[in-house]
Amino acid sequence: MLRFLTAGESHGKGLLVILEGIPADLPLAEEELNLDLARRQRGYGRGGRMKIESDRAEIFSGVRRGKTLGSPVGILIRNRDWENWKELMKVENNISALPAAQALKVPRPGHADLAGGIKFGHRDLRNVLERASARETAARTAAGAVCRRLLAEFGTVIKSQVIEIGGAKVKGEGSKVKENDYWEKVEKSELRCGDPGAEKRMKKLIDQARSKGDTVGGVFEVRAFGLPPGLGSYTQWDLRLDGRLAGAMMSIPAIKGVEIGMGFLAGRKPGSQVHDEIFYKSAVGGQRSAVNFYRKTNRAGGLEGGVTNGEELVIRAAMKPISTLLKPKNSVQIDTKEAVPATVERSDVCAVPAAAVVGEGMTALELARAFLEKFGGDSIREVRRNFLSYLREVEAY
Amino acid sequence: MLRFLTAGESHGKGLLVILEGIPADLPLAEEELNLDLARRQRGYGRGGRMKIESDRAEIFSGVRRGKTLGSPVGILIRNRDWENWKELMKVENNISALPAAQALKVPRPGHADLAGGIKFGHRDLRNVLERASARETAARTAAGAVCRRLLAEFGTVIKSQVIEIGGAKVKGEGSKVKENDYWEKVEKSELRCGDPGAEKRMKKLIDQARSKGDTVGGVFEVRAFGLPPGLGSYTQWDLRLDGRLAGAMMSIPAIKGVEIGMGFLAGRKPGSQVHDEIFYKSAVGGQRSAVNFYRKTNRAGGLEGGVTNGEELVIRAAMKPISTLLKPKNSVQIDTKEAVPATVERSDVCAVPAAAVVGEGMTALELARAFLEKFGGDSIREVRRNFLSYLREVEAY
Amino acid sequence: MLRFLTAGESHGKGLLVILEGIPADLPLAEEELNLDLARRQRGYGRGGRMKIESDRAEIFSGVRRGKTLGSPVGILIRNRDWENWKELMKVENNISALPAAQALKVPRPGHADLAGGIKFGHRDLRNVLERASARETAARTAAGAVCRRLLAEFGTVIKSQVIEIGGAKVKGEGSKVKENDYWEKVEKSELRCGDPGAEKRMKKLIDQARSKGDTVGGVFEVRAFGLPPGLGSYTQWDLRLDGRLAGAMMSIPAIKGVEIGMGFLAGRKPGSQVHDEIFYKSAVGGQRSAVNFYRKTNRAGGLEGGVTNGEELVIRAAMKPISTLLKPKNSVQIDTKEAVPATVERSDVCAVPAAAVVGEGMTALELARAFLEKFGGDSIREVRRNFLSYLREVEAY
Amino acid sequence: MLRFLTAGESHGKGLLVILEGIPADLPLAEEELNLDLARRQRGYGRGGRMKIESDRAEIFSGVRRGKTLGSPVGILIRNRDWENWKELMKVENNISALPAAQALKVPRPGHADLAGGIKFGHRDLRNVLERASARETAARTAAGAVCRRLLAEFGTVIKSQVIEIGGAKVKGEGSKVKENDYWEKVEKSELRCGDPGAEKRMKKLIDQARSKGDTVGGVFEVRAFGLPPGLGSYTQWDLRLDGRLAGAMMSIPAIKGVEIGMGFLAGRKPGSQVHDEIFYKSAVGGQRSAVNFYRKTNRAGGLEGGVTNGEELVIRAAMKPISTLLKPKNSVQIDTKEAVPATVERSDVCAVPAAAVVGEGMTALELARAFLEKFGGDSIREVRRNFLSYLREVEAY
Repeated sequence: MLRFLTAGESHGKGLLVILEGIPADLPLAEEELNLDLARRQRGYGRGGRMKIESDRAEIFSGVRRGKTLGSPVGILIRNRDWENWKELMKVENNISALPAAQALKVPRPGHADLAGGIKFGHRDLRNVLERASARETAARTAAGAVCRRLLAEFGTVIKSQVIEIGGAKVKGEGSKVKENDYWEKVEKSELRCGDPGAEKRMKKLIDQARSKGDTVGGVFEVRAFGLPPGLGSYTQWDLRLDGRLAGAMMSIPAIKGVEIGMGFLAGRKPGSQVHDEIFYKSAVGGQRSAVNFYRKTNRAGGLEGGVTNGEELVIRAAMKPISTLLKPKNSVQIDTKEAVPATVERSDVCAVPAAAVVGEGMTALELARAFLEKFGGDSIREVRRNFLSYLREVEAY
Repeated sequence: MLRFLTAGESHGKGLLVILEGIPADLPLAEEELNLDLARRQRGYGRGGRMKIESDRAEIFSGVRRGKTLGSPVGILIRNRDWENWKELMKVENNISALPAAQALKVPRPGHADLAGGIKFGHRDLRNVLERASARETAARTAAGAVCRRLLAEFGTVIKSQVIEIGGAKVKGEGSKVKENDYWEKVEKSELRCGDPGAEKRMKKLIDQARSKGDTVGGVFEVRAFGLPPGLGSYTQWDLRLDGRLAGAMMSIPAIKGVEIGMGFLAGRKPGSQVHDEIFYKSAVGGQRSAVNFYRKTNRAGGLEGGVTNGEELVIRAAMKPISTLLKPKNSVQIDTKEAVPATVERSDVCAVPAAAVVGEGMTALELARAFLEKFGGDSIREVRRNFLSYLREVEAY
Repeated sequence: MLRFLTAGESHGKGLLVILEGIPADLPLAEEELNLDLARRQRGYGRGGRMKIESDRAEIFSGVRRGKTLGSPVGILIRNRDWENWKELMKVENNISALPAAQALKVPRPGHADLAGGIKFGHRDLRNVLERASARETAARTAAGAVCRRLLAEFGTVIKSQVIEIGGAKVKGEGSKVKENDYWEKVEKSELRCGDPGAEKRMKKLIDQARSKGDTVGGVFEVRAFGLPPGLGSYTQWDLRLDGRLAGAMMSIPAIKGVEIGMGFLAGRKPGSQVHDEIFYKSAVGGQRSAVNFYRKTNRAGGLEGGVTNGEELVIRAAMKPISTLLKPKNSVQIDTKEAVPATVERSDVCAVPAAAVVGEGMTALELARAFLEKFGGDSIREVRRNFLSYLREVEAY
Repeated sequence: MLRFLTAGESHGKGLLVILEGIPADLPLAEEELNLDLARRQRGYGRGGRMKIESDRAEIFSGVRRGKTLGSPVGILIRNRDWENWKELMKVENNISALPAAQALKVPRPGHADLAGGIKFGHRDLRNVLERASARETAARTAAGAVCRRLLAEFGTVIKSQVIEIGGAKVKGEGSKVKENDYWEKVEKSELRCGDPGAEKRMKKLIDQARSKGDTVGGVFEVRAFGLPPGLGSYTQWDLRLDGRLAGAMMSIPAIKGVEIGMGFLAGRKPGSQVHDEIFYKSAVGGQRSAVNFYRKTNRAGGLEGGVTNGEELVIRAAMKPISTLLKPKNSVQIDTKEAVPATVERSDVCAVPAAAVVGEGMTALELARAFLEKFGGDSIREVRRNFLSYLREVEAY
């Protein structure tokens, strides 16, 4: 039973993660977590803070001499800028109250500021935004990196690409995603985009937005290769993997839409052009998925009935533009009720590439959870035995 | 803590629901559940079975003399056609095995048949499709109707409409949804569609699909009016209401995409055209939501930071066409591995209006859960006291 | 992930169970459930109702032609006396309200009546006692019987015996529990007691209590034989199997104490007389548990660090006397606040043998859950492969 | 929904806690956590390590300027001796493997060593014992201290006392527990024992055990005063507060028995001497619990039907003697299979007073969870409003 919780405020001491249920004897190094943290911080369109800070995950527990112990993996990501925030964010109370002027009183449209302020009764909106911050996704990314490492042991690889920013789309997405070269190109791209022409148009849109004090969002896609069939279950509403993945993806801040496979397009096409015909070829057995049944199309995106079918998992998410605009929108001071422009706290123009990396992490977390549900096991050896014995059954099906 | 589980096969004795956590003293009648079951069964494009059967929910426990007891609500929906399926689906084993010819051996593309068969090792695919069936959504609808009843006590009303079928879209959706007249029109429409012109085009597409042995899907929208601000939480990834709603919606069979508010469009527009500016007018307090802060736009769809902000909740879902085509697609016999056409089990052409009603139910379930998390309470009176006292605080915020 | 929920009132239509997560292809017949239901209804000291009614479980879903489908198992246990209770307990509301005289107004000491009435604000205490009733344990027993069947596939057998009633104790408990003869004797005993001398004294105490209008409780013990080592986990507080079993046992109505292994006695002895020394003998491998490491004592009761260690699981529970006394205790009418004797609703004198059967069921449920957590698997074949491959590793440890 | 997870090994960098669901605006200081950590470390019979180390909890997140934010509370308890363990326990792998001689190969009877080694396939038993260690209870104690602080806001106070060690019992327990003086005496006692005569006998038993290289266990009691009636629920097996408390208590390492109220004694007495008669006196309303219904006895220990009834909660737990004996018991080297004496890792003789403090913490955690389930609320103000409005209803019941 994989569980994870995060804690930590954006400008507090740092972020904490407890990831429970990772089997013993998984090789794991901080560098692997840091690699994903670095990938999350890259991206054309990021503002000052992202460049200054360089997140480092410290494995605090659950790993000994390079291998997991089977006990919970604890992770710390310190705020490298803590010294500058200490007075404002300190844990201790003291006699001198915070100067009233330092309290945030103007909720930013698009953020949790107002809804969160009302919910908790906070009158300094910093008490909301410190937690309702995209910064929390660094913690998810670190946890996701552990799950990615776990899945990699069993041949599942997770990739992401940005396919649309501010209306500029890649062409022919999906046509080359099986090539390793393609993903290297994506990885090198400042926008995680595998289509140089589209990337150029995207950058232009980002530049235009920046010059107007505006922001842009976009769409990214996460793919998982090498998944076995049979993860997730149709037997109960909350066990379906499509629902779980959609929930995980939509829980990423700023995500407003999620699609699996053809997604919304499936609602526009006739069934004859949507469902993936089934074929069989025993030679296919050499493949990782061990399924001799195969498809020539993958419009379902790897999930039928909420269960993996042995094809690639394809999931897309739409991210709204960053909510803080340098040219701020109208808002209201919560004490005086005066109409005033929203507070400007930071200044990224576009964070879709970062969100794509977070999306990989959330996908890894849900897939690892479904994987361990099916295969059980307390050590990597035990999980592997169970996994391989299932693959043999799959091949013989 | 609201929990619900369903059980039951499509052609078995029936469906069971246990819905745990409904407070005591909620007035509840079977007719209310049956109303939603009937709404789910309507719709232009449904095949024979839907017309024959007329689902009836029987409240089996948790309600006494018209009011909930605070104990789990148990619901039964019997299969009215059980007599005809008894031999095939009976619980008891007996000496005479099922004739081999009656086992389903050809998985249908788009269904869980193959993935589920491999997962569980079933060689009669009926063992999969009986549970991985849209029929299970009747159980969800009944549970959802109870939650709808609960929410109604506190002024929240949930509606749905079909906004697209097979590519035919309503025009100007959203412009009239605040009018009761509009929803009456939707309710009367055979396709749950409030735009008669669009409905006409949709029906034509359905007729064309039928004549070709094809099927069509579409997009529906669920709206919740009168929600208080502050439901859901940004404090932990799995408490965000956007993620939970998306997960609930995507868990409905055949759903391949989910959007909140602007959804994917938010990824195509600049931030200045996406985020909803904040205004204040104390007179607004007369409204149900009690929030004096308000928006002139609702592109966020009622959720910011995964928390309700007092605006209408707007969630859309894309449904793929029904997977069983009268003109079947290619498949493979799982024993002989021969290429054969897929089995044809039933014959609806379009089920988007039904899915919309299921979508209302799933929305009601998640909203009720979030509502009770915030307000606690073991009886309707206690929930109401807590709710009203919060509303007073909201008004004064 | 094994989950189960029950629903149903004591004098309502009946009880419902949904048991989620049982793998496919487990042979299962209603008779197996009914056997345990019958065992639960036996016992010297039961009153009239137990003799009249004879519970029958109907498998409503999740089983086809004698085998589980992998989908949720739904179970119904109808109230055979429903016709007589219909008017009082009906679901429907109608114009003629219940005559005030029929509302229960006097809470019975020892029952949930008063605490539940206050909690839910019920003023007819029947609304509490209908659910807060030992009758609900019939549902648990049926669910437990399914889990017992599952565990039996893997060599785990669960037994119970009554070891104390009203102060009369068996002698030398534990000395013969490895013999099958012993358990046959227990099964034949009217009090589930393997010591005829003790049984005689217990009966005498029951008779004395009955003649005084009093009741008696006692202590029962549940044992599980053949468990593999390694179930449960010390890695997180809520994964420890000792805690989970204690919680399951204490959740049975009227249980006030739970012990594992030596239990309270372990707090009275020096460590040198408590901990079980470890030995090794490869020939032991012939045993079911496959552990070559063994103990000559089993004071730990089969759990160390919250994990099964390959020895027998031994858990005991203390049941208080039945709360309804024929010679009723003092109470208060909740409307008038007058001091009056408590209501007398039923008349068993002793239900410890019944509780022991319920205890078997709860033990089976928790063990099955822990078992499936460790071994995963969607079909019995898959669980078995994983289980056997682990046993080979255990043998080689 | 209160959740908590802990992470961390005994000799690793330290312990982590994430406690999720604490409402906003609860005043909270590290000192409060440290107070309970210090109370946990005291006690006659502790060995060297306890005296050297002095645990300090650092609040890492979720608290700002002395008040909770409503976001998860993250806590760190560093291992002050980490420098000395760094080489053995480091996270990083490196070329030079750990010298074989440093691996622990001899499982200690009574510990998780053998069961955990088999479960996870660990061949260095340190990989088990580092997590399956009583040290983890420091993390629980810190989390419990936060919950204690929460409950204190609403008038609930949690106390513990040691009532038995190695067979030496306090006399007349329960007779003076309502007096504050009594608890001050307990707090000052080296053994958390309020009966000086018993304390003397207990110390003597500890001294004798120490001189023999042996250890002793005992029994402690946790009481909660001022609880409202109506926490927990009889409506579902896993919502009953008796089961949840028993589970929480039994999950503390070394606990082998749990009792509520009369506990096992209830199985030995007739019903007429067990159940608590119900009385009414409106003047009682002045009391904290607001229940005018009251009892003259409290044999139920504050719970009827798994629901608090307004009386004191009384729960007892039996702790086995510490498993590591200076005069070690027989065991087996897991590689060579040679019979050898068990490893001796540390040297406390008795830890019952410490376990009592941990027991307070686990009780606080479960009570806080049940409290927030009933009252909901996102800020202390909101919880308080809901709580007080319920109390008014309780008074009028």
